Amino acid sequence: MASEPKTLNDLFWDTLKDIYYAEKQILKALPKMAKAAKSPELKQAFEKHRNETEIHVDRLGDVFEIIGKAPRGKTCDAILGIIDEGKSIMEEFEGSPALDAGLLAAAQAVEHYEISRYGTLKAWAQELGLGNAAKLFDQTLTEELKTHQALSQLGESKVNKQAQPKAA
Amino acid sequence: MASEPKTLNDLFWDTLKDIYYAEKQILKALPKMAKAAKSPELKQAFEKHRNETEIHVDRLGDVFEIIGKAPRGKTCDAILGIIDEGKSIMEEFEGSPALDAGLLAAAQAVEHYEISRYGTLKAWAQELGLGNAAKLFDQTLTEELKTHQALSQLGESKVNKQAQPKAA
Repeated sequence: MASEPKTLNDLFWDTLKDIYYAEKQILKALPKMAKAAKSPELKQAFEKHRNETEIHVDRLGDVFEIIGKAPRGKTCDAILGIIDEGKSIMEEFEGSPALDAGLLAAAQAVEHYEISRYGTLKAWAQELGLGNAAKLFDQTLTEELKTHQALSQLGESKVNKQAQPKAA
Repeated sequence: MASEPKTLNDLFWDTLKDIYYAEKQILKALPKMAKAAKSPELKQAFEKHRNETEIHVDRLGDVFEIIGKAPRGKTCDAILGIIDEGKSIMEEFEGSPALDAGLLAAAQAVEHYEISRYGTLKAWAQELGLGNAAKLFDQTLTEELKTHQALSQLGESKVNKQAQPKAA
């Protein structure tokens, strides 16, 4: 092919569009997960994460601006698959005491996908000399890691314990 | 519905089938990623992880035995989506100096999915009093975290630096 070979800039832009799309999907999924959750603490955790996700989308908008591109998503099969698994849990475990444990696990899979993408984007931004973008990714990464830890703690201290039917 | 509500045991079994299917898909994907990688270190990292993945599949077999079920997979849309994104990178960045950086990022997304699932399964095994299963998950989790760290280090020290075309 006579076209120029793709560069790390192209890969960075592609992955930025991937996580932008993913965050928008997560914004739509979290209210449904909050509605389905039985535990008030889990509901609250999903609502809090929804609000944070709005800030994460805004930060991605800032990164698009830094690289002089219009904010645009690119279909991300990974997040669609992860969210679909969460939907299946909601359907299959409706009315089960294990529903919340399943929702929490689905949310952790979402968190891990985000952690993976933001870690990658931060490293690439540093490599590309995009210090301000790296800082924005680092802020979001720190918040995603905190959410992941908070969910783990909520799972172990409460949600998983409530997942078993009460002894008669 | 007159049927018994699903329990944490059902959720555990479902998720065990999910990661069993995912590991089998990863076993098929890693040799293709190793073949595509240009950096000898990245090739070696993928080959090493492939060998470890065989052990992880065996350990999952042991957990199926612990719960008295035959080892069986359940289609996992999440891992299919994650692996598909890796395939797209291989196609779109063929011949690009950024190919390895993209492959490494795809492998990190796979790692994070596994870390998420094994973390969840370990917590549930503990809750269900399946101490031996929890130990097996913990071994695999430790190895996945090590692979994740090794990939991050390889990315920052070498692969990302080689992703930009050499200055003339």
